[in-house]
Amino acid sequence: MTGERTDPYPPTVEYVDGAVVLLDQTALPEAERYVRCEGWQRVAQAIVDLEVRGAPAIGITAAFGLALAAEGSEAGSADGLLAELGEVAEALVATRPTAVNLAWAVESVLGEARGAAGGGTEDVRRAVIGCAQRLAAEDLATCRAIGDAGAPLLVGIDEVITHCNAGALATVGYGTALGVIRSAHLDNPDLHVWADETRPVFQGARLTAFELGRDGIACTVIADGAAASVLRGGRVGAAIVGADRIAANGDVANKIGTYGLAVAARHHGVPFYVAAPLSTIDPDTGDGSAIEIEQRPGVEVAEYRGSAITPVGAAVYNPAFDVTPADLVDAIITEAGVLRAPYGPAIEAALGGRGTKAGG
Amino acid sequence: MTGERTDPYPPTVEYVDGAVVLLDQTALPEAERYVRCEGWQRVAQAIVDLEVRGAPAIGITAAFGLALAAEGSEAGSADGLLAELGEVAEALVATRPTAVNLAWAVESVLGEARGAAGGGTEDVRRAVIGCAQRLAAEDLATCRAIGDAGAPLLVGIDEVITHCNAGALATVGYGTALGVIRSAHLDNPDLHVWADETRPVFQGARLTAFELGRDGIACTVIADGAAASVLRGGRVGAAIVGADRIAANGDVANKIGTYGLAVAARHHGVPFYVAAPLSTIDPDTGDGSAIEIEQRPGVEVAEYRGSAITPVGAAVYNPAFDVTPADLVDAIITEAGVLRAPYGPAIEAALGGRGTKAGG
Repeated sequence: MTGERTDPYPPTVEYVDGAVVLLDQTALPEAERYVRCEGWQRVAQAIVDLEVRGAPAIGITAAFGLALAAEGSEAGSADGLLAELGEVAEALVATRPTAVNLAWAVESVLGEARGAAGGGTEDVRRAVIGCAQRLAAEDLATCRAIGDAGAPLLVGIDEVITHCNAGALATVGYGTALGVIRSAHLDNPDLHVWADETRPVFQGARLTAFELGRDGIACTVIADGAAASVLRGGRVGAAIVGADRIAANGDVANKIGTYGLAVAARHHGVPFYVAAPLSTIDPDTGDGSAIEIEQRPGVEVAEYRGSAITPVGAAVYNPAFDVTPADLVDAIITEAGVLRAPYGPAIEAALGGRGTKAGG
Repeated sequence: MTGERTDPYPPTVEYVDGAVVLLDQTALPEAERYVRCEGWQRVAQAIVDLEVRGAPAIGITAAFGLALAAEGSEAGSADGLLAELGEVAEALVATRPTAVNLAWAVESVLGEARGAAGGGTEDVRRAVIGCAQRLAAEDLATCRAIGDAGAPLLVGIDEVITHCNAGALATVGYGTALGVIRSAHLDNPDLHVWADETRPVFQGARLTAFELGRDGIACTVIADGAAASVLRGGRVGAAIVGADRIAANGDVANKIGTYGLAVAARHHGVPFYVAAPLSTIDPDTGDGSAIEIEQRPGVEVAEYRGSAITPVGAAVYNPAFDVTPADLVDAIITEAGVLRAPYGPAIEAALGGRGTKAGG
């Protein structure tokens, strides 16, 4: 690596002085505003409202939400505290059903809390906060490992295309798909990124363009509909995206529009890569058909910042995610290395040391 | 046909009392506002600013622009008037380079003007205005013929998907792709249309949803990125779009995003149909590579109604159109019937009676 490794700004989510501090991603790119959540309910709202988004980031945020709940609890016994935390966990997991990192992080924290119950409420509190802090630190290290594992796939490539934001803003820092791009950029400063704007919430136009701009990585925003003709142009060497859940067979749930990009990439012989931590893989989900696809409010499509787009009363269908079948995925880049088809055994081997999501 | 044939509103463009009256499509769906253009320069501006858009509609609008120029001219001779009209024609054709109907309509009017030059300036004026009026009337009849020619392709289909707006609003009335849907809907009131919102200008969300809503045809708006997963759902029986230019070999230039939809349709075995008048076919364009793709201002992607989407200074690539190669097109529906591959001879036969674009 010849360049210097950078992160463009402070962590996306932090636990500071008994509060969860988030960079408000709904305000970007116009304003860089931090939200201070002093109760777990406010954390849950931040996840629902997309003030924080991205599968790894919402996992860590939910873990910090449990830490807030533990700190604020007046439970008189470890069992009482565990019961409270169980309810909070359920509410946090219900905020967004597709990204499995959320359930994984919450289960990890609860697992440690249960393990500490013998020591009383203070031990449970310490375990919850400590686990959340550790998951956040691990997320950053994991992203850097993903970046370094994936960078060799981009050697000799000057143009890549990405969808949504799988960057520092979708994680604690560095990013997954954009982590791979960051690591590749260290050796190839000419690397240029085509960023699908990613309707309806514009994570590509608002967030990917913002963070790559901060990092000095060349980036051009396109309408999602322009991706196929950009691929037809013949200069793009790879498509790379993040993931919200990866099934045991390698099917990938990710932001709506990912599947169309994968189909177009295959049509043009462009490799399609998915970059994600192992915590995004759900061994309990057999294939993509078992993944619940979150339906978001139609107003995300029908309006932008209060200006109407569709006529009053128009019907809107707004699935937040789609599923890309494993056979369109050329590699899954994880902190444990690059997985290739057949994904079933590759995933099983990669998860070998980790166990199921409940194991932490 | 069991239903009653309707148009949801007055013509998209009309020549009334020496002015060109346009339904301002930039204001839809929030406001139904008509623009009155009293000089050809204002007509040219309306085309540039997308107050009127859609290949057939801008052709007729430009023809009316020539009529305004002829009425307003103070030329003292037929030759002087023809020279003026030639300059106006050049300016009008330059407003948007991709849609060939614009050049075709302007050439048609100029041809008639030249033919009338022997009779003096008044005859030239009458010829210009008469030709423009006739082209407008023909456009409506052509759309209805396209609709009736294409409707049999949708028999037995309850769900179709379309991109952009190839409707009444893209023509004088009735529409091309939406004309086929209107004609099919007469026999199948259950027909349901998935409308790609069509970034960046949202012609699908704003215009297709508006005019189908007016017509009582069920329509659901989706983000462009959702089209592939809607197709994967297996219920969509056909994709149908309009065209801005069709090359002699059947390659189709149409709104950006059309090509990606065609790739996704083929991937799912869903027939992909293009509906357009013969005036959209340019026998002088050998194939799609010869079609100039208009580049639109980046601000169309970067802002919506004054609200920023991309960060300040972000690079944007905003091609207005893409080219779908003929081998992804299952049929081209024209007023002369349904053309099938190989399109070269099919197009030659269909144009047989019409000659080249300069012939009118």
